[in-house]
Amino acid sequence: MDVMEPRATGTQAVREPQQDRSRATRRRLLEAAIDCLATLGWSRTTVAVVAERAGVSRGAAQHHFRTREELVTAAIEYGTEVRLRRMREHLDALAGRRPPTLDVLTLLAEMYTSPLFRAALQLWVAASSDEQLRARVVPLEARVGREAHRLTVEALGADESVPGVRETVQATLDLVRGLGLADLLTDDSARRSRLLRQWAVTLDMALGARAR
Amino acid sequence: MDVMEPRATGTQAVREPQQDRSRATRRRLLEAAIDCLATLGWSRTTVAVVAERAGVSRGAAQHHFRTREELVTAAIEYGTEVRLRRMREHLDALAGRRPPTLDVLTLLAEMYTSPLFRAALQLWVAASSDEQLRARVVPLEARVGREAHRLTVEALGADESVPGVRETVQATLDLVRGLGLADLLTDDSARRSRLLRQWAVTLDMALGARAR
Repeated sequence: MDVMEPRATGTQAVREPQQDRSRATRRRLLEAAIDCLATLGWSRTTVAVVAERAGVSRGAAQHHFRTREELVTAAIEYGTEVRLRRMREHLDALAGRRPPTLDVLTLLAEMYTSPLFRAALQLWVAASSDEQLRARVVPLEARVGREAHRLTVEALGADESVPGVRETVQATLDLVRGLGLADLLTDDSARRSRLLRQWAVTLDMALGARAR
Repeated sequence: MDVMEPRATGTQAVREPQQDRSRATRRRLLEAAIDCLATLGWSRTTVAVVAERAGVSRGAAQHHFRTREELVTAAIEYGTEVRLRRMREHLDALAGRRPPTLDVLTLLAEMYTSPLFRAALQLWVAASSDEQLRARVVPLEARVGREAHRLTVEALGADESVPGVRETVQATLDLVRGLGLADLLTDDSARRSRLLRQWAVTLDMALGARAR
């Protein structure tokens, strides 16, 4: 009765709470999947384990995601969208003022040392020896890469029509990805802070020199 | 009899072939372990699978390495030592002439996109959710990191007493590590070449500017 009622009456006001509940369940599963991947690793992150961490029944979890691969890919996609949207809002709040280069680098480095990055790394590494998973992950990685690049160009106020600028922005993103790896087994934050301060100087010089 | 003879006679000439055989078996196992990790991934790389790929009996493999963890850590250590020794010989052959910056970067990028890097990545990621393995891998990673840093400083002719130079060299190594990750699922070589050409220009500028 509870479940059928919204469909039977068909009004927005009644249908919405159920849709909201379903969306909330889905979001809880996606967040729990990121958490499990980042802390337990790929092989221990099953739909059952994620469902338990999310406080969702296994049946409900499987209603949303039939396989681990489906769940995990959706989780990384969701987590990345949330992160990139936050960065976009951050930039919008600046209303066209260009943030200091070091602030942009710090924001990027936070993204690449977050549980989300650790979770994504588990997925990438699993996909590197699993053809089916790779076919799923490659388009996702390409989309995320393009969006991260676009936001970084905007945040740095970089002019990609100038030769070399595109490659310098790419190098910045590859650098923070490398910093994410360096933080995987030990706390690398002190070294990272010094490195980013210096990188901000180099980047301003490189982008400035190119733009001249 | 065959096995006992060297011990019984105790002469170098007789003992050596057996030691050579044992060393060769060990080396074959280490190389097969790198190959298995890079292509099959962590979970499918067992001592039995590596022994088979190496053409060594399972008993002989377990005489050398009792556990997967022992075998895999030794393999990454061995592979890294070979790689770094090759880089050292390359530098020694230059007899003090400083190689072009782009050559140094290309050599580093080759190291971080090799099967060895892919294998090491499997180990790092496995260690990130396994405390015992982490305790084994952290000192190894630190040792390798120090040695790679020292070689890069020497190859670039960088003067680390100048403020900022140490961080710029570190950033270069984090960048190539990031490039290794970017090459994991798709062939990134074309983008990487363009990026490294530009990075060589920036690096010469950064190190030059610091040294002035």
